[in-house]
Amino acid sequence: MSPKITGELLRLLRQAMRSCKYFSEPIHAYIVPSGDAHQSEYIAPCDCRREFICGFNGSAGTAIITEQHAAMWTDGRYFLQASQQMDNNWALMKMGLKETPSQEDWLISVLPENSKVGVDPWIIAADQWKNMSNALTSAGHSLVAVQDNLIDVVWTDRPERPSTQLRTLGLEYTGISWQDKITTLRGKMTERKISWFVATALDEIAWIFNLRGADINYNPVFFAYAIVGMNSIRLFVDLKRLSDPVVRDHLQLDSPSRPELSVQTFPYESVYTELQAICAALGPKDKVWICDKASCALTQVVPKLTFVLCLIHFYFIYIKAHRTPIPYTPLCLSKAVKNATEIKGMKMAHIKDAVALCELFAWLEKEIPNGNVTEISAADKAEELRSQQKDFVGLSFPTISSVGPNGAIIHYRPLPETNRTLTVNEVYLIDSGAQYIDGTTDVTRTVHFGTPSAFEKECFTYVLKGHIAVSAAIFPNGTKGHLLDSFARAALWESGLDYLHGTGHGVGCFLNVHEGPCGISYKTFADEPLEAGMIVSDEPGYYEDGSFGIRIENVVLVAPAKPKYNYRNRGSLTFEPLTLVPVQVKMMNTELLTQKEKDWVNEYHRRCREVVGAELERQGRMEALQWLVRETQPVV
Amino acid sequence: MSPKITGELLRLLRQAMRSCKYFSEPIHAYIVPSGDAHQSEYIAPCDCRREFICGFNGSAGTAIITEQHAAMWTDGRYFLQASQQMDNNWALMKMGLKETPSQEDWLISVLPENSKVGVDPWIIAADQWKNMSNALTSAGHSLVAVQDNLIDVVWTDRPERPSTQLRTLGLEYTGISWQDKITTLRGKMTERKISWFVATALDEIAWIFNLRGADINYNPVFFAYAIVGMNSIRLFVDLKRLSDPVVRDHLQLDSPSRPELSVQTFPYESVYTELQAICAALGPKDKVWICDKASCALTQVVPKLTFVLCLIHFYFIYIKAHRTPIPYTPLCLSKAVKNATEIKGMKMAHIKDAVALCELFAWLEKEIPNGNVTEISAADKAEELRSQQKDFVGLSFPTISSVGPNGAIIHYRPLPETNRTLTVNEVYLIDSGAQYIDGTTDVTRTVHFGTPSAFEKECFTYVLKGHIAVSAAIFPNGTKGHLLDSFARAALWESGLDYLHGTGHGVGCFLNVHEGPCGISYKTFADEPLEAGMIVSDEPGYYEDGSFGIRIENVVLVAPAKPKYNYRNRGSLTFEPLTLVPVQVKMMNTELLTQKEKDWVNEYHRRCREVVGAELERQGRMEALQWLVRETQPVV
Repeated sequence: MSPKITGELLRLLRQAMRSCKYFSEPIHAYIVPSGDAHQSEYIAPCDCRREFICGFNGSAGTAIITEQHAAMWTDGRYFLQASQQMDNNWALMKMGLKETPSQEDWLISVLPENSKVGVDPWIIAADQWKNMSNALTSAGHSLVAVQDNLIDVVWTDRPERPSTQLRTLGLEYTGISWQDKITTLRGKMTERKISWFVATALDEIAWIFNLRGADINYNPVFFAYAIVGMNSIRLFVDLKRLSDPVVRDHLQLDSPSRPELSVQTFPYESVYTELQAICAALGPKDKVWICDKASCALTQVVPKLTFVLCLIHFYFIYIKAHRTPIPYTPLCLSKAVKNATEIKGMKMAHIKDAVALCELFAWLEKEIPNGNVTEISAADKAEELRSQQKDFVGLSFPTISSVGPNGAIIHYRPLPETNRTLTVNEVYLIDSGAQYIDGTTDVTRTVHFGTPSAFEKECFTYVLKGHIAVSAAIFPNGTKGHLLDSFARAALWESGLDYLHGTGHGVGCFLNVHEGPCGISYKTFADEPLEAGMIVSDEPGYYEDGSFGIRIENVVLVAPAKPKYNYRNRGSLTFEPLTLVPVQVKMMNTELLTQKEKDWVNEYHRRCREVVGAELERQGRMEALQWLVRETQPVV
Repeated sequence: MSPKITGELLRLLRQAMRSCKYFSEPIHAYIVPSGDAHQSEYIAPCDCRREFICGFNGSAGTAIITEQHAAMWTDGRYFLQASQQMDNNWALMKMGLKETPSQEDWLISVLPENSKVGVDPWIIAADQWKNMSNALTSAGHSLVAVQDNLIDVVWTDRPERPSTQLRTLGLEYTGISWQDKITTLRGKMTERKISWFVATALDEIAWIFNLRGADINYNPVFFAYAIVGMNSIRLFVDLKRLSDPVVRDHLQLDSPSRPELSVQTFPYESVYTELQAICAALGPKDKVWICDKASCALTQVVPKLTFVLCLIHFYFIYIKAHRTPIPYTPLCLSKAVKNATEIKGMKMAHIKDAVALCELFAWLEKEIPNGNVTEISAADKAEELRSQQKDFVGLSFPTISSVGPNGAIIHYRPLPETNRTLTVNEVYLIDSGAQYIDGTTDVTRTVHFGTPSAFEKECFTYVLKGHIAVSAAIFPNGTKGHLLDSFARAALWESGLDYLHGTGHGVGCFLNVHEGPCGISYKTFADEPLEAGMIVSDEPGYYEDGSFGIRIENVVLVAPAKPKYNYRNRGSLTFEPLTLVPVQVKMMNTELLTQKEKDWVNEYHRRCREVVGAELERQGRMEALQWLVRETQPVV
């Protein structure tokens, strides 16, 4: 991996910073965040501006360029990769290390007094803007919004924004029409006296309109904004995409059934001016709902008219506020609770996915002794087998296919220069998933094709105990996911071990494989209580640096439980595994398992055999069926 | 219990609200919080203003009086009690019920436009002021600080502020001199570039000066403030208390060893003007550290000079900020981590406390069949037995002594009108503790003197499993207490049961029985990571309304653990029980216990027998010793 040569690019960028063409005064520092205007986790090539300027292409990182310096902040997953991809114009700022200053502190330490720090207000979230602006202001500097993106100014061959064909989803996949989703949203707006709702997250827009796209790899979304009022629906999207009669019919563009359900369409770029027009016409009591995570540019269109004076004693003069900021939107929560049709689809997708994985493991067992299966070829084989399944669309994230020491790199992705061969001597970890029209999958299995060491088995068994502790947990309605995180760690902790990532994330239905607002993590982010119908992953792990990685991941459905009692009629919940792929018994030290845990394993394997076995038989995939039957023999 | 007659009092109070004698304009509503100027949990009689005005004497509640209405907010623990203690001038606002408005919403709904809401700025915390003020301001009203407390205006026979004798604690109890504590504090101030630290919490002031008082029941504290600079120490206290030569000598008032350790003393009331004088002389970079929880009056003395203008776009002009608000103070954290001397003292206090409780249970067993032991007499007996122990000072909180259905009232305190007789037919729960000069105790045991029902035993056993799961947990250094809370609930949850309170709180050393900043709760308040040397309670429970209550509480010390591995050299922690009182085996359904849990019980009982047995023998309390030996026979 050779670093990107960035000297000339930086020279051009600094020229643009000094020029008063893009901002009325020279800019002394320029911040390049990694996101797009929708704060997407995965981004399109045209939005990879941080990668363009510094060369580092990991999923998280922020570059800051001043007249003298260029620095890039990223976290522990990417220290090695970033140091290899960046040339010596760049300083790597290792986040999480004590000696590494925050971006704010670093800026304050290197900037001359009264400096202007620029950022594109479209790709910084409103809450991040606020934090950065407060920090800089208190040190005598200022954060300024530069409307033209200065990277785009120097990026001569920047790709176009994708505009892929839209796919309409019928009731057989969504369970609820987009019209009913709009009506439900308006109900929530009425409850909270909100006049307008601004949707900026791409998966929320895809979800509410029952539309999908392919603008971003792995995420079946399309670039758009939406603004919903009590009597109007405005969709901002590349208008060329709406020439497709199927899409026009789906959105009833030519013959709306009811006026309040008529969708007005606008070019993608006009969201700013349309929102300005809406805000200019706001009544004194009109409130606009927009997420904290929306772009600063769009958020600031909504007036938050406050005039605040505080001199020694608190003293407030308050005029009016139209903006109602929220940590996540009502769509985010509605989308998280899957309806019966979506649950049925997710179950079907997971059965098909299990068929592909059973085939993969049966194939690997046969092929590995020949010595020509690598991390990359195994990942390719998994994709090929998945693509044979009905309604397959693509992968839901880049496959993590890792052998031995590579397995200890949590976000590893095999590259030609790191590619290892699968052998009977090392642990193999594969974390993969796919998008099917009926659902999204995400599964990790850790296997050994020879004889695992006692320590590998011991660690695997602790991880399994943690996985089971979460999966089998019964807990009251209203419990937040972070309260379950320690269940996944207790067995590891007891032996002095741990893993440095959360235990689970929300999973979309033919949508993003990572979605909010629920999850299972020691980090108490704004997670909403778990509710029946939510779908999350359960994925504890253990990583022995330089040696091996273990993770056992199922996607699980939050489902009602019926324990013996029902305290205060609150009702109870538990998890039902949607993923149905055997967990390798060979990796278990069954002496460390309690009878209850063995019972869980046996019941889980019985379901795998019954459900996936039937599908394998139906599809005539007999070798994989034999593998499945062998791998699901009861543990005693 | 007959309600307090409040008609005339309210008339007088409203007169004071209308009069412009106490504020330049009439006040349309007046808020009466329950705290004192130090935000103490327990308060002195002179500070019981909310009780005075409405009659309700529970520990939590806020009264608000308008021209037309009088309403009092309290939580579920106190609905019955409050409804009995208040006359029909008052509306009881049941917090936690959906239909109950917040204080802010209620005020907004009942007040005419542009109203002034008054509050005594000394008894409202700065953070509460801010929330209330923002809510009122956004509805067109304003929150105003009324310097004279209007309750005091109408409270003609208000008791004097207590000024009890101060007790000095030597190194044999504290382990660290007050001079060294000041030096450590200054070290932390230097680290964070803080010029002045304002101490307002009574337990923090008692702790740093190695002094104790008896101004407030159960809490060995005294009314004071302290302001520590890099070269000066100012103590604000009733100066009469400093005439005692022992105190003068302890504080080196007449011959300070070093000038920077010389304590300047001022009258209690002059803290406001002194802090003003300090603030008037602040340099441009001087910062003052004051807790968010300090009174609004004192907090606002520290200039937070900010001039903020935001018009449509964020636009800040920032002048300077002297105030550094913190959720808890450096003293709070230092105090929470006990040193070796304090730990030794706490252990000794718990052994003495166990002696008293073993005697109590032996005595109860003998006396109950005679039918003349009541909740109150049992509590009195417990106090009498504790008072026989060396260095006993008093109780650490009002004893919860509860039989049968009274046990289900979590914060029950026996009163003559609720007092039940202990019998062989009902579960008995006693939650009690004491202050000894060497330490503070807090223990709950739940026992049956006849034959418990299968359901009582089942619930007790789940609670015990939860207690053990926390107590025996091994977890990494740096873990926050809230991550352990679910361990205490897992066994209850599995059967559909739960309890609606946290699992543990910090415990002071001859100080407040409830202290921050650590604890074990599903509420993720600003709890600091657990550290070796911290002391918390472990007290899961189960409450069957109208029938019985179960709680098993030990005070436990956070101690290093040495599991098999040591992931990333982080080190591990566990808990060591300081409380050494047998847990009644008769209440256990041992079939529900795992072998590990039985081993824990047996090892715990072995320690009780060994340690407390030796002390019982030394003190010649042979009946209690026999009881202890019988109650600690191994479970099989």
